[in-house]
Amino acid sequence: MIYSIIGTGAIGGYYGAMLARAGKEVNFLLHKDYDCVVRHGLQVNSCVESIHIDRPRVYLKTSDMPKSDIVIVALKSTNNHLLKEMLPPLLKEDTLVLLIQNGIGIEEDLQQYFPSTSLAAGLAFICSAKTRPGTIDHQCYGSLNIGNYSCGSSAYSPINGGANDEKIDLLLADLEEAKIKASRVEYLEARWKKAVWNMPFNGLTVALNTQTSNLLDNEATAQLVYDMMMEVVGAAKSLGVTNIDSTFADKMIAMTKAMIPYSPSMKLDYDYHRPMEIAYLYSRPIAEARKVGFEMPKLAMLEAQLEFVQEKYEKQHGH
Amino acid sequence: MIYSIIGTGAIGGYYGAMLARAGKEVNFLLHKDYDCVVRHGLQVNSCVESIHIDRPRVYLKTSDMPKSDIVIVALKSTNNHLLKEMLPPLLKEDTLVLLIQNGIGIEEDLQQYFPSTSLAAGLAFICSAKTRPGTIDHQCYGSLNIGNYSCGSSAYSPINGGANDEKIDLLLADLEEAKIKASRVEYLEARWKKAVWNMPFNGLTVALNTQTSNLLDNEATAQLVYDMMMEVVGAAKSLGVTNIDSTFADKMIAMTKAMIPYSPSMKLDYDYHRPMEIAYLYSRPIAEARKVGFEMPKLAMLEAQLEFVQEKYEKQHGH
Repeated sequence: MIYSIIGTGAIGGYYGAMLARAGKEVNFLLHKDYDCVVRHGLQVNSCVESIHIDRPRVYLKTSDMPKSDIVIVALKSTNNHLLKEMLPPLLKEDTLVLLIQNGIGIEEDLQQYFPSTSLAAGLAFICSAKTRPGTIDHQCYGSLNIGNYSCGSSAYSPINGGANDEKIDLLLADLEEAKIKASRVEYLEARWKKAVWNMPFNGLTVALNTQTSNLLDNEATAQLVYDMMMEVVGAAKSLGVTNIDSTFADKMIAMTKAMIPYSPSMKLDYDYHRPMEIAYLYSRPIAEARKVGFEMPKLAMLEAQLEFVQEKYEKQHGH
Repeated sequence: MIYSIIGTGAIGGYYGAMLARAGKEVNFLLHKDYDCVVRHGLQVNSCVESIHIDRPRVYLKTSDMPKSDIVIVALKSTNNHLLKEMLPPLLKEDTLVLLIQNGIGIEEDLQQYFPSTSLAAGLAFICSAKTRPGTIDHQCYGSLNIGNYSCGSSAYSPINGGANDEKIDLLLADLEEAKIKASRVEYLEARWKKAVWNMPFNGLTVALNTQTSNLLDNEATAQLVYDMMMEVVGAAKSLGVTNIDSTFADKMIAMTKAMIPYSPSMKLDYDYHRPMEIAYLYSRPIAEARKVGFEMPKLAMLEAQLEFVQEKYEKQHGH
């Protein structure tokens, strides 16, 4: 199978390098880091082992890339409007597009532009960061859950448009070969489970300029994190996802306590003056829940604070 | 009448200097700024006119000060535990203690230690800041509303312990002479009206490291400010204050838009690394409302964020 990676950063760079090391054909789209990666290759400094891909197949635009069996989109979702132009050169009739991105509503939006393309959600449980051009620090974890959104008839898939469900099996096999722990999950449940962790920690680490561990060490913010998680659990339930409850929130908090002090992706975006993924991480899930009559007041307040932080930054930096 | 000012800062220094300039006997308690004020006097740089008191009556401890007719407490409420020791040397049988401090529950707490002392609330509508030792910048406004808490029988007073209501009239006359616009107000209503402005703006300018104007320029935070004001209005109503409604919130927002970009007192405390008045400005009103079954979810979230900011600061600075 031919793989293409759209967005060779902390996530796309990691999974792409792991697949390439296992001998898969992986084509990487790069932008600013292109020259550096041509010269020095792609480096993953991992907690498990370090990987160096000497001569990765790198490209500056998708029109130079081969049509692919699997396209892994690991862009920041703030750039998803670019996919309209970027994806078509890569698509065959049976291409599977795996969106390893955070948030709610991503597949729904993209499907509107590509109604017959098979989409799946990739939920990455990984602590990693691109620390220099072409260099990814992988701190811990790394498993990938895959939820069938529109890859054909499957008990898991909410949309049964294509006939691509078996491609998910092939992908899972390749990931296993590449030593990536991967599983199939139910699409909507998986997206909301991810949101249970993402919605409190991404925004609060930005609003309070801190890391996950400090939020849980303080009694007041630890309670706030829990309350926010329960808002996500409530929203999911209102939207028909019935098997996430308070024990899942407890589990996420226990897991985070066991993690090293961590800056979630939105905090890194904030620190490095990149746009924050407010739309898919906050506005969209809050709006989806509101549509069915469920309010998320604390997360809505956090959304407002993030909008403020974002606008302040844009004013200061003129874009 | 003999006046004593406990806390010669942005508030106590301003009102004390205005009274002293009008020829009243005003005794100032100072701490860090004592030597500077002995040497250079007390300076108020005002938007209206500048005032210099060459040789103010200054003291380092209340035991050296005369027993007073009116004691104006303008300490940060975070220091109110000191009043148990500081007040007794100043008190006569008919002393009126005017607490020009922000928050809810201040008089209730102090009355427990001084059950027979006449207390009144002072609500200052003023933009001022102590910018250097002995120097106060008065940017605008300056009126003082006075609410009888326990100064004797009055339609206004919730507690009818003393027989001191006429002293409020004498105080109002002195303030008028000193060119300070002052009025009598109903105690509980006045404290909660002040909270309508204080609770959103003090905490949000800290949490988002900004000024009042920026909060109202951003659509998301302008809405958040309004929502928080309505939480205060709802809490006040639950506690029996029936004549504050949404039109008052609208008025406060319109007034703030007309003001220069402003850093409320809590933001200045934060900027200058002083403890923040979280207890009386947030925890207490939230708890009072909760006692009668009214929740303030957005302000409770802000309280948690402020507790976090405060603890972070204390850890960094070891106190």
